[in-house]
Amino acid sequence: MDCVFGIDIGGTDVKIGKFYENELVYKTTIKTNREDDGRHILNDIFKKIDELLEGDNLIGIGIGVPGPVLNNSIVSSKNLGWDEVDVLNIVKEKYPNVEVVILNDANAAAVGEMAKGGAVDYHSFLFITLGTGIGGGIIVDDELIEGDTGSAGEIGHIRVGFNNERLCKCGLYDCVEQYSSATGIVKTANNLRIGRETKLNEIEVTSKNIFDLAKIGDEVALEAVNNFIEKLATALAAVTNTVNPEAIVVGGGVSKAGDFLIKRLEKRFNELCFFSVRGTKFALAKLGNDAGMYGTNYMVRKKLNEHKKV
Amino acid sequence: MDCVFGIDIGGTDVKIGKFYENELVYKTTIKTNREDDGRHILNDIFKKIDELLEGDNLIGIGIGVPGPVLNNSIVSSKNLGWDEVDVLNIVKEKYPNVEVVILNDANAAAVGEMAKGGAVDYHSFLFITLGTGIGGGIIVDDELIEGDTGSAGEIGHIRVGFNNERLCKCGLYDCVEQYSSATGIVKTANNLRIGRETKLNEIEVTSKNIFDLAKIGDEVALEAVNNFIEKLATALAAVTNTVNPEAIVVGGGVSKAGDFLIKRLEKRFNELCFFSVRGTKFALAKLGNDAGMYGTNYMVRKKLNEHKKV
Repeated sequence: MDCVFGIDIGGTDVKIGKFYENELVYKTTIKTNREDDGRHILNDIFKKIDELLEGDNLIGIGIGVPGPVLNNSIVSSKNLGWDEVDVLNIVKEKYPNVEVVILNDANAAAVGEMAKGGAVDYHSFLFITLGTGIGGGIIVDDELIEGDTGSAGEIGHIRVGFNNERLCKCGLYDCVEQYSSATGIVKTANNLRIGRETKLNEIEVTSKNIFDLAKIGDEVALEAVNNFIEKLATALAAVTNTVNPEAIVVGGGVSKAGDFLIKRLEKRFNELCFFSVRGTKFALAKLGNDAGMYGTNYMVRKKLNEHKKV
Repeated sequence: MDCVFGIDIGGTDVKIGKFYENELVYKTTIKTNREDDGRHILNDIFKKIDELLEGDNLIGIGIGVPGPVLNNSIVSSKNLGWDEVDVLNIVKEKYPNVEVVILNDANAAAVGEMAKGGAVDYHSFLFITLGTGIGGGIIVDDELIEGDTGSAGEIGHIRVGFNNERLCKCGLYDCVEQYSSATGIVKTANNLRIGRETKLNEIEVTSKNIFDLAKIGDEVALEAVNNFIEKLATALAAVTNTVNPEAIVVGGGVSKAGDFLIKRLEKRFNELCFFSVRGTKFALAKLGNDAGMYGTNYMVRKKLNEHKKV
């Protein structure tokens, strides 16, 4: 049977999904081997694909990577130790007669949510992942906007401060992901809790614990959440004023805070955005860690269908 | 001969251009009559069109308006006194067998620069007008991004401050157009010049004078320019991280400051944007006040050609 592999390479593990048409029929994870500048990662994936093929006919491979993708091909990823690795051609060399698509991971997840997740009802939306960092993907008229150098949707690095308070891994100061990510809110809470009465002085300060405590009214935790929301709503207003999507779909580990987060975010967003984009819809992503696999499979199928039409 | 009218409605006057194919063969301006909630504006335009037709065959009318355009049809514009005016249908009622296109004015100018101006070499770019306010238009893969409610490109209302320093006409605080427009830099200079030695205390404080004095080394004027650039580069970095265009094309009255402005802007932009969009090209717009007429003519022709193909 014809099959496509939808793959999502992360900093700690690689998610590998086998698809018949749009159905995910098998999924597994392997460790991301970052040794030797990550040069084993693709071979590890190839080994797994060959093992999982089981007599099926491989027609396509889609790979999501944590970094910008230049010309749908070349990837630089600090997370993987890759510097201008030509992923497309390495995969094509190993599987010459197969459709190959390389996507930024957040873009892949955005497409996945469009194909089968929280964004099936929208034709234009911003997808945002709130995890260790912040990633984003932008869909306009059912098409992914990839950008001139594969960097569209890098909304985690929008500047939301002018006092050089927090240095980002990217080298800039006060990127929104320094405030409105799992690590960002922990920093904020750790700053706020000193010398104050809060449960945060008794338990481990994690993003989940901060949101949980905020839900039951811990004042310091609530302040940390409000700071998180102020910065994120500011960045989302900037993005929305720019591309005016129908909806903002929120995923990533922090989105597990659910409606408590979304309702507050939506309220502050509506106060901060330009009047004519007020009312932009907010929704939670639905596919969790599977989004990238669905998205890369979708893009491979789309490309195969385009060839058929020509 | 077949002709199209490309029209650009501004707060003070209406620019009307008559086109044979892509050639602007005649242009004129009429006053924008904002009396009675702007209800005479369209009739004034119709009268002028009829007068300028001179036996030619009218095949299309394109109109740029200073406000968001919902469903390519309905316009709310504080500048004109319009509240949800269905411009498309009013024009179609008067000219039933003619192609009609309604565009936001900054979007129209963006398309104009793509068709015949400073952006002919780019397939994806951000067009920005620096005038009394800030307007923007975004082109991706040669197509205008209009947004779900016609508001894409409203980049003048990106937040670039967190101290509620300057209240914008839109009701928000610290929109970039409060700092990086002709009026914004005058405010900044007026704040800075008090009690200091500067030529700005001897002449009228206008955007042009501030830039001219900065060019010859007036320290206070230079500080005002630097503030203008800091805020604008921040907003442009946010937009570029989001849509990653090939180029940023700068128009509007303030762009007459030329390379002095563009070089400084580009330098600071490259310091503030995400690493993978560094190197985004900067260019000056070329069509000046004619951009909107060229853009609306272009969009009418495009629509007419699409009908032919079907």
